[in-house]
Amino acid sequence: MVTWNNLDTLAAYGKLAGMKNRVNIVDAMSGESGSERVARYTTPMAGGLNFNYAAKQVDDTILETLAELADEQQLVSKFEELYNGAVVNTGEKRRVLHHLARRQLGDAVIVDGVNKRDFYVSQQEKAAAFAKKVHSGEITNAAGEKFTTVVQIGIGGSDLGPRALYIALENWAKANDSLKMEAKFISNVDPDDAAAVLASIDVSRSLFIVVSKSGTTLETLTNEAFVKNALEKAGLDPSKHMLAATSETSPLAKSDCYLEAFFMDDFIGGRYSSSSVVGGVVLSLAFGPEVYAEILNGAAEEDKLAANKDILKNPDLLDALIGVYERNVQGYPATAVLPYSQALSRFPAHLQQCDMESNGKSVNRFGEVVDYVTGPIIFGEPGTNGQHSFYQLLHQGTDIVPLQFVGYKNSQLGSDVVIEGSTSQQKLCANVAAQIIAFACGKDDENPNKKFEGGRPSSIIIGDQLTPFSLGALLAHFENKIMFQGFIWNVNSFDQEGVQLGKLLATRVLAHDTDGALKAFSDLLDI
Amino acid sequence: MVTWNNLDTLAAYGKLAGMKNRVNIVDAMSGESGSERVARYTTPMAGGLNFNYAAKQVDDTILETLAELADEQQLVSKFEELYNGAVVNTGEKRRVLHHLARRQLGDAVIVDGVNKRDFYVSQQEKAAAFAKKVHSGEITNAAGEKFTTVVQIGIGGSDLGPRALYIALENWAKANDSLKMEAKFISNVDPDDAAAVLASIDVSRSLFIVVSKSGTTLETLTNEAFVKNALEKAGLDPSKHMLAATSETSPLAKSDCYLEAFFMDDFIGGRYSSSSVVGGVVLSLAFGPEVYAEILNGAAEEDKLAANKDILKNPDLLDALIGVYERNVQGYPATAVLPYSQALSRFPAHLQQCDMESNGKSVNRFGEVVDYVTGPIIFGEPGTNGQHSFYQLLHQGTDIVPLQFVGYKNSQLGSDVVIEGSTSQQKLCANVAAQIIAFACGKDDENPNKKFEGGRPSSIIIGDQLTPFSLGALLAHFENKIMFQGFIWNVNSFDQEGVQLGKLLATRVLAHDTDGALKAFSDLLDI
Repeated sequence: MVTWNNLDTLAAYGKLAGMKNRVNIVDAMSGESGSERVARYTTPMAGGLNFNYAAKQVDDTILETLAELADEQQLVSKFEELYNGAVVNTGEKRRVLHHLARRQLGDAVIVDGVNKRDFYVSQQEKAAAFAKKVHSGEITNAAGEKFTTVVQIGIGGSDLGPRALYIALENWAKANDSLKMEAKFISNVDPDDAAAVLASIDVSRSLFIVVSKSGTTLETLTNEAFVKNALEKAGLDPSKHMLAATSETSPLAKSDCYLEAFFMDDFIGGRYSSSSVVGGVVLSLAFGPEVYAEILNGAAEEDKLAANKDILKNPDLLDALIGVYERNVQGYPATAVLPYSQALSRFPAHLQQCDMESNGKSVNRFGEVVDYVTGPIIFGEPGTNGQHSFYQLLHQGTDIVPLQFVGYKNSQLGSDVVIEGSTSQQKLCANVAAQIIAFACGKDDENPNKKFEGGRPSSIIIGDQLTPFSLGALLAHFENKIMFQGFIWNVNSFDQEGVQLGKLLATRVLAHDTDGALKAFSDLLDI
Repeated sequence: MVTWNNLDTLAAYGKLAGMKNRVNIVDAMSGESGSERVARYTTPMAGGLNFNYAAKQVDDTILETLAELADEQQLVSKFEELYNGAVVNTGEKRRVLHHLARRQLGDAVIVDGVNKRDFYVSQQEKAAAFAKKVHSGEITNAAGEKFTTVVQIGIGGSDLGPRALYIALENWAKANDSLKMEAKFISNVDPDDAAAVLASIDVSRSLFIVVSKSGTTLETLTNEAFVKNALEKAGLDPSKHMLAATSETSPLAKSDCYLEAFFMDDFIGGRYSSSSVVGGVVLSLAFGPEVYAEILNGAAEEDKLAANKDILKNPDLLDALIGVYERNVQGYPATAVLPYSQALSRFPAHLQQCDMESNGKSVNRFGEVVDYVTGPIIFGEPGTNGQHSFYQLLHQGTDIVPLQFVGYKNSQLGSDVVIEGSTSQQKLCANVAAQIIAFACGKDDENPNKKFEGGRPSSIIIGDQLTPFSLGALLAHFENKIMFQGFIWNVNSFDQEGVQLGKLLATRVLAHDTDGALKAFSDLLDI
């Protein structure tokens, strides 16, 4: 049995707290010490990825203490409990089973007589079979034409993850003859969002997936109505164009408004639901079920690594531990996610949700206020774009922001040009290598305006190419990192009570049941 | 004459520093006090916008002290010096004239015999005349067909601002019959970026604008070569498809590789260059020159307000001052920009550059290290999307993040549906009103997990509709806010020396002139 303790009760944390500014990154990353660290401070991930933490503010002593902390806080045992089906989401009294949607890692999880692995697999198979029928033309529109476009209607976890994954693989799929259908996404309740997407597609040849676990998400139901309205105006039968991805108990589940319904359950949270039918239906339709299966396989391989008790062989746990050292000992408020890959342009936005919604908490899993900081601010844009934008502050600002780089040796499309003796891909890679060293080592200069203090920690995940498998590994890496950090901080990473109050008040505004400042703002906005 | 002093030398700052946590937002925004503040703490902006700061952590005493600080630091006088042509960018010994591209605010600025206002206007007129010829079909491709697409090739300031403005008005233009050409953007040196854009357009009917002030930006020149290559492969003459937006002294200026060249100068920094031909050519081609002129007119109107010495009538200055109170007295590390408008989806990314590149500095304008924090981290996504993502941390996380909301009474497309008694636009507005109060007032609950502390400050800019004019006002508001904050912190907001070291090291990597950790990372990335 594991025990759940606050971070500041741990002996290892006490030791760690005495190690602030122990490592001078400028010295550590200079000369021979630098190349030695690059060779030594690296650990393999799934999909041929490697997590390199040479430029992090750690040394062997800190790493040993982090290993002690991992043991003392029973981090891997807690992960074991989680994947064996314990009710880890204590607030909502739910299991946390997104790993199980990828692979059976531990014991069978039986709930109300249902083997949950079988349930998730059956839904994946249902999505796969449906996608194949759409691709083959067995399922068509009323005019007998093939569907060419799939539109996901969802918000938050029903949008950000699947959208980030679609964008990540769109060009890969084009290059590998795997783009079966174009995917679009409608999320915002702003009517201009749905209207613009509808104007950009041929609705008669589009399938729409209404994605809401509860079947009650107001934005999504509103956008569903928006789309139905457009289908009817075009003389089409919405029930022949609309699908549902929802839970079996939701109002959407048994409705005859949908051509087909695919099911998830309460044990997969929205921000972790790319591995459920929330991601599975849209990605199977867009890329084919084999590609979607590869994403899950990559994630499953990474999950296996996360079960290793040796932190030096567990990149997800190691990344989590170093992040806690930076956040709680060094006191850094934020982390920047910087993929050197245009295909990952929306991956930081997905991680922003996954991380900030999971660990942006002030009470522990027993509801007691914690005396330490928890989840950091997460933000990021792809490189090299960011270099010409906010990197100025990262290099020379007054606050230090730890950096998470991602880079690939090869592009996805393989189309390239040689300018000044190098390809674009080489320039891209040269820039990320250069940035790590510029941030770590800095540069002295007589002109203080041109001086770089350095000492700014970063890690990098390096891969051969962004493929479905390595994308799955990347996704699982961050999901598991966030899970481990939640265990370390002793918070419940799987609820999101902080989003409820706004919903409640918005409902009151729409019912004109307000007073005071809320009424005053409602009046200013002409509601 | 103005004098340039560090923030911590100011008497008013000493007073302000003693006012930490003076205002309890929960109390201030509750009951009658709340509605009174909403009515009173508001000031008009250009374009029918209003800046409402009722939910900020200020009261009359703090506002009076901020006014003293504005006077003592001579903030409006510094702006006057700037628009009258003083060399405010001391590091690079340059004037700062982006306001002049919008309107003559003060004295004529003559440099080397050239009236700079006349110069900027002449380039705007050149862009307008060119755009009209393209739209009318006077300028066509070799086959005599009209150009349908314009592609901006630029990075950083040559990309983020123009792209954010294009996305902001694309739907408005469709609804107002003003979308003359579709615009696309290539920025990243990642070859997959250019390849994907090229695959999505008909290159034979596309114009490409190479945007680089110096004419030496490696990413942009590489992408130019990428595009030229594609044009040649398609049997087209690149010089009939390519335009340049650059300075008169750049290698691009006199080249016969371009159908036409448009000029800016060193007195408009990249991140402020949407008001120069960097924004002017692409937006005039996309929307018509009249629409672009409206953006500039809206910005010019806002600039006029920024010259007002009364902080309560100067929304740009007031926003800046409150931000410094939050950053330096309250100690908040970041600011979230949250537009409730899908059209502003990339506006936070533009502000992220504008703000973090301008004020992410550790030395003052004389090169002396400052003893206080400067520019915050800026991030954001449109609402309501963000509500289903990172708002959890904003509501219940351990750090307080001040919020900048933007909302409009009307949508751009006007296409809407009524669900459960309200339109989507009403739901959107109800949500932003609700969020302000949820963040400010919080909510008590027996279950600590469902408890909201409140006390989280926000402001909101409210407008009727996002139009070209009000977009220009919004753009100028933030540009001016950032300028004033730079004056307050006594930093040079107009250089970006922090981006140089990475460039230098990347060049060394590509030349294989590296050792130590840099060589080790280059090897790992197969360069």
